[in-house]
Amino acid sequence: MFENYLAEVRGKKPLVHCITNYVTANDVANSLLAVGASPIMADEPLEVAEITQRCDALTLNLGTLDQKKIESMLIAGKKANALGHPVVLDPVGIGSSRLRRRVAEEILKTIQVAVIRGNSSEIKALAHGTVAARGVDASVKDLMQEGDLEEEILLMQEFAKQSNSILLVTGAVDLACDGEHALVLRNGHTMMSQITGTGCQLSALVAAFLAANPADSLMATAGAAACYGLAGELAKTRLRLDEGTATYRNRLIDALGLLTATDLKGGVKYEIYS
Amino acid sequence: MFENYLAEVRGKKPLVHCITNYVTANDVANSLLAVGASPIMADEPLEVAEITQRCDALTLNLGTLDQKKIESMLIAGKKANALGHPVVLDPVGIGSSRLRRRVAEEILKTIQVAVIRGNSSEIKALAHGTVAARGVDASVKDLMQEGDLEEEILLMQEFAKQSNSILLVTGAVDLACDGEHALVLRNGHTMMSQITGTGCQLSALVAAFLAANPADSLMATAGAAACYGLAGELAKTRLRLDEGTATYRNRLIDALGLLTATDLKGGVKYEIYS
Amino acid sequence: MFENYLAEVRGKKPLVHCITNYVTANDVANSLLAVGASPIMADEPLEVAEITQRCDALTLNLGTLDQKKIESMLIAGKKANALGHPVVLDPVGIGSSRLRRRVAEEILKTIQVAVIRGNSSEIKALAHGTVAARGVDASVKDLMQEGDLEEEILLMQEFAKQSNSILLVTGAVDLACDGEHALVLRNGHTMMSQITGTGCQLSALVAAFLAANPADSLMATAGAAACYGLAGELAKTRLRLDEGTATYRNRLIDALGLLTATDLKGGVKYEIYS
Repeated sequence: MFENYLAEVRGKKPLVHCITNYVTANDVANSLLAVGASPIMADEPLEVAEITQRCDALTLNLGTLDQKKIESMLIAGKKANALGHPVVLDPVGIGSSRLRRRVAEEILKTIQVAVIRGNSSEIKALAHGTVAARGVDASVKDLMQEGDLEEEILLMQEFAKQSNSILLVTGAVDLACDGEHALVLRNGHTMMSQITGTGCQLSALVAAFLAANPADSLMATAGAAACYGLAGELAKTRLRLDEGTATYRNRLIDALGLLTATDLKGGVKYEIYS
Repeated sequence: MFENYLAEVRGKKPLVHCITNYVTANDVANSLLAVGASPIMADEPLEVAEITQRCDALTLNLGTLDQKKIESMLIAGKKANALGHPVVLDPVGIGSSRLRRRVAEEILKTIQVAVIRGNSSEIKALAHGTVAARGVDASVKDLMQEGDLEEEILLMQEFAKQSNSILLVTGAVDLACDGEHALVLRNGHTMMSQITGTGCQLSALVAAFLAANPADSLMATAGAAACYGLAGELAKTRLRLDEGTATYRNRLIDALGLLTATDLKGGVKYEIYS
Repeated sequence: MFENYLAEVRGKKPLVHCITNYVTANDVANSLLAVGASPIMADEPLEVAEITQRCDALTLNLGTLDQKKIESMLIAGKKANALGHPVVLDPVGIGSSRLRRRVAEEILKTIQVAVIRGNSSEIKALAHGTVAARGVDASVKDLMQEGDLEEEILLMQEFAKQSNSILLVTGAVDLACDGEHALVLRNGHTMMSQITGTGCQLSALVAAFLAANPADSLMATAGAAACYGLAGELAKTRLRLDEGTATYRNRLIDALGLLTATDLKGGVKYEIYS
């Protein structure tokens, strides 16, 4: 099923405007290219409205946030809304900074965000105004884990309803939900948490999947997560014993580009919860 | 022949000041190092004149443009002109933004640019003020293709004459021309268009080749393109079947560093058109 | 011995706030993750005090310096001092720019810097106000070399005393010293100077080692250099003949993550000089 969502991305080649951090911008661009989409990074207030107008989707990533980017995100987000382009918000490190939380809240208040993608700590910091996270990684107690999964899903669906956005919560398992439906996705590999930028890449991929699959945003979101998680698994199988995290980073983007419909049919593991 | 141009770069180790985008800055730096040149990235108006003074060439790349970089580009460009250092302009994404086009025009009006390097869409947007491109990639109808190559060359030579710059137009084939002479270069591989930053890297390499080969700027420009295109082919031969675009990105820079005179003598394909 | 310092990093997982350049930020983040630490990059004056408060160490890297980062470095540095967090200064390219030298001097005057990490040219430019370097690489005559090593050590120890900081001077050999003690470290590989960012990575690793090993900062600093140098050697042994500098860049971070206590016990070469 998800192979069709990927096929739409490869066929339509959506152009994704990324207002994103400089730490992982290169990975984000290469991931988008690997699935057949095109990236354009632009964060100058004087040009972002025009850039977004020429694109098909917008991703707002709060990493290395600064005042210039804040202004650009608000301009571009409103423009994308006016044009009906999907907007993805990635609240990187929101638990570590009141500035980032305030900006995320302003974005959610003034812009219709199609999907919020973050780890469990980040989404909770956004939902509850708590500041539990250390840096940009999820707190251990906040990893999406099997034990309290049902409770987690209920909490997240409530916030999805309240924010009127789809949530994609990534961790030991991934959750894609809106206020009514929820999918649990069980692909991925722990090495994905040992490199920087996997969250940023997935957020941008979600934007591409949304643009190419406008009829069903929740399934498009889950499709991006399924493809990325499966690529993470395949990347591990292609790693030699004397290769580590930096080579894994490359194998992951390699695997995204090499993904086949057969891989997806045989490899994606998910359950519909509601 | 082009092996001599590369040998000059490796011997003289030119220092290249890059005012460039943050998406591909790491690739640009590593490409310059791979051919034996040295990079310095600096874009603060308070220091760029001094930085450029200590360098041998300057590259101005319009990706992730902002007001700080615009100011720095104009300061550094004028300083480089005063010192007789070659300046390369890469009008990234110029077809997507009036700001970028206006800045490119201001650069061309106030700074003597030795070489403009772009894809066909970007160069045409610059030449004609058209806005045909989608994002940072060339429009399909604007790829340099065999069918209408002669017409394309005439158009480009006219703009080269008008702008008093050498043009390096990259695509399915590459064109290096000034108002009088034109070379068509037939190296490269389609995978180069599936990763971000190949254009940015080539533009910086051109700056290094110009600095090390001041006697013949057109041939130095063509030499950079020939080396980079051939590296792109060799990189592909070193890619396993289960490796994709991210590994290719590394193999490409690897191949640049490993290029031999024998590789170049045997592998470069080009024709002199006029 | 140094294996214990690495074990502390892996066990304590220090969070390192990096105010750093955009050229090598991705490599810095992935290096920190490879040794078990966590990075957070943040350079907006409005949030850096809060970010640093949630971290365990701070690294100030002068590459791609701008006015925003200067302001942030001073705010974050003072906050880190107030909290007793170790601060590492990497004076990238200081010999090429009066602005960078002025900022480094202001940092040293107003902030207690635990460790200054640079190549010999950079440290000398800082110590003597000379401007001998070309760009970001060490001048040949300034490489740490065997012949005049003892003289170099005396000079450096004098500056260490004067600045009240530990120095980590990297080159053909590495020197870690304070005003009283000096270690010479003989690991590493020449390929480390053919890629960008090895200095930046090491500076951030030093911050992580300091945070995890507060009892002995000089040995922690030497430990970071020993681990990184040995990883550079192991990376070379894992490189195929048709692989070059870009693949080496990945193998280096791979090797950091794969380092074992046995590797370190058998492979680290150093001498205590005083």
